Amino acid sequence: MPVYADPVDGLAVPVALLQTWTARLIERLDTPPDIAADVAEVLVASDTRGIASHGTARLPNYVALIEAGVMDPAARPERIGGRPALLHWDARNGWGHHAGRIAMDAALEASRELGMAASIVRGTNHFGIAGWYALRAAAAGSIGIALSNTSPLVAPTRARLPLIGTNPIAIAAPAGRYGAFCLDMATSTIPRGRIEVAARRGETLPIGWAIDAEGRPARTPEAALEGALHPLGGEESTGGHKGYGLALAVDLLTGVLAGSAFGPNIIGLFSTEAASNLGQTFIAIDPDAIDAAGAFERRLEGYLDQLVASPTIPDAPGRVLVPGEPEADAARQAADRGVVIDAVHAEGLRALGDRLSVPFPAAEAQ
Amino acid sequence: MPVYADPVDGLAVPVALLQTWTARLIERLDTPPDIAADVAEVLVASDTRGIASHGTARLPNYVALIEAGVMDPAARPERIGGRPALLHWDARNGWGHHAGRIAMDAALEASRELGMAASIVRGTNHFGIAGWYALRAAAAGSIGIALSNTSPLVAPTRARLPLIGTNPIAIAAPAGRYGAFCLDMATSTIPRGRIEVAARRGETLPIGWAIDAEGRPARTPEAALEGALHPLGGEESTGGHKGYGLALAVDLLTGVLAGSAFGPNIIGLFSTEAASNLGQTFIAIDPDAIDAAGAFERRLEGYLDQLVASPTIPDAPGRVLVPGEPEADAARQAADRGVVIDAVHAEGLRALGDRLSVPFPAAEAQ
Repeated sequence: MPVYADPVDGLAVPVALLQTWTARLIERLDTPPDIAADVAEVLVASDTRGIASHGTARLPNYVALIEAGVMDPAARPERIGGRPALLHWDARNGWGHHAGRIAMDAALEASRELGMAASIVRGTNHFGIAGWYALRAAAAGSIGIALSNTSPLVAPTRARLPLIGTNPIAIAAPAGRYGAFCLDMATSTIPRGRIEVAARRGETLPIGWAIDAEGRPARTPEAALEGALHPLGGEESTGGHKGYGLALAVDLLTGVLAGSAFGPNIIGLFSTEAASNLGQTFIAIDPDAIDAAGAFERRLEGYLDQLVASPTIPDAPGRVLVPGEPEADAARQAADRGVVIDAVHAEGLRALGDRLSVPFPAAEAQ
Repeated sequence: MPVYADPVDGLAVPVALLQTWTARLIERLDTPPDIAADVAEVLVASDTRGIASHGTARLPNYVALIEAGVMDPAARPERIGGRPALLHWDARNGWGHHAGRIAMDAALEASRELGMAASIVRGTNHFGIAGWYALRAAAAGSIGIALSNTSPLVAPTRARLPLIGTNPIAIAAPAGRYGAFCLDMATSTIPRGRIEVAARRGETLPIGWAIDAEGRPARTPEAALEGALHPLGGEESTGGHKGYGLALAVDLLTGVLAGSAFGPNIIGLFSTEAASNLGQTFIAIDPDAIDAAGAFERRLEGYLDQLVASPTIPDAPGRVLVPGEPEADAARQAADRGVVIDAVHAEGLRALGDRLSVPFPAAEAQ
């Protein structure tokens, strides 16, 4: 996930304050407090990690789903079957963040005895950043994998229309003094939000980001927004079929396996027409099943030492990074200075807070 | 994996004949018949699927490893620990193809009771095409995943040197009348073999394939061969950091987890200096643990129906493809007409056969 340096004219809100307010707002929508706490934690984690597109800025969208009656704010996930290492859950159309937390915790618990386990969740909703769930496993000393299918925004290689989601893959593991390794990536070249940023900035787009409505390379953000995103790799000549295959593999391991919606059958992002019915998968692997406690983490740390110390290309903006490092830096900064949210985002939360009688906390302008 | 249309001036060898000869040749190197049969099956499957770079053309390399005493032709993999759903194996420096087949079969067997299981293999060797192991699971009605780390050929984003492998990811699943879904991809934009093909053809290279020895974009095959491959996504602006993260994630789930070599510590491809000591991981997921028998496969088939019928971009060379479809087509063609191998490949096998007194079968020129 890219960390946007974009919102500079914003408010700095202390992390704890933003999280408490978010939880209270969600409780106001008939969400039980324990569920609201999970949702607030995941949303604010996204904000602190610099991924504003998946954090509290989405609260108005979630509220709209609940008010339209297409998402159940009080539903609890239910285990509906599976086997000891492959647990099948129905989120019963509740908050994806809560179902995801429960599902990852269950996979982690089962992995302690079995070495590896997964939770396959059907009937769920957007769960924010996939990395949060993978990092939860890493914090417990395990390798965590989180996958979700999403609304169709990506055109398969050779296709003209958006038929598959940006289906994220997150993989995290404990990494010694690096904290955690955390790859959290959409399987498209860039997320749709990056096109919106380009539109605000008046940028032209490189080949490999998106196609226009006719299926030709989109060179302007406007053309891209009417077309579809390219899978990771871009055009076929630069390996776009691999990104397409990865996106499809994520769908196969989530929606198709879980018995949820998939591919072109998923409704639009935050559409209030119907329930989202997404599929999500959470895998936990216990490295202590393979080797002495801590051995895996020490090996990974040594590997990362070698990578970050390696010589760089002439125009490198810095040293080689560990996946998840920019987001972890952003989170440390947010812990010190608060979460910086831009004017549009702040106004959205203020309006929502006023309407639901949970006033958005006063915060100093940056 | 790309299917190269390259070798046209070659020999057509019937599949069964090539496989029998390969097994006999390998037996001559003190490999027990059951192990030799596995190796021959995987190598010839690669040839039939159009991936000549990973098939019998590599036999001279494997023989060199055995003759140098850095690979044990008779070793059998040993289960050294793990837990019920996470089996830990030591391949004891034997044939990777045999250890991989044993490891995937064990994961499949454990998944019948547990829903999902994995085999983590250390101390192993190149295992040919990752897709073969994933497809073995698909043929058994399961979702199969196969991962391997490999010799360092890829420069991490911002790095100037090749520090990580092209670490392949293969995912397969049964797909009704499509046979199988089979994504089998290197996590680099293109495999090194594609650069060699470009050199033979005198092509210039697109941005995003490789860097030269100074870390600048390589525009000629010669410059690329002295530099390093780009991870999938190419440069940082087009998502190359995602391919880098994926390659690293594969290493984490194979070599780092298994306790094998990883990243820059892996020796060169088919180097006879020391044992390869690769790490490989095989995961099996039983969809019948989640839903009624056949339900998953029917959903996937319906999804693929939607994709292949979708409208295409203006310059599309054909309809939208299912991952693995070109390779399956090549395999069908090879079953009819034999495996077409080019002159260099044929000469290599003939010389090897003569030296080991297992004459390469006469075959008609194409």
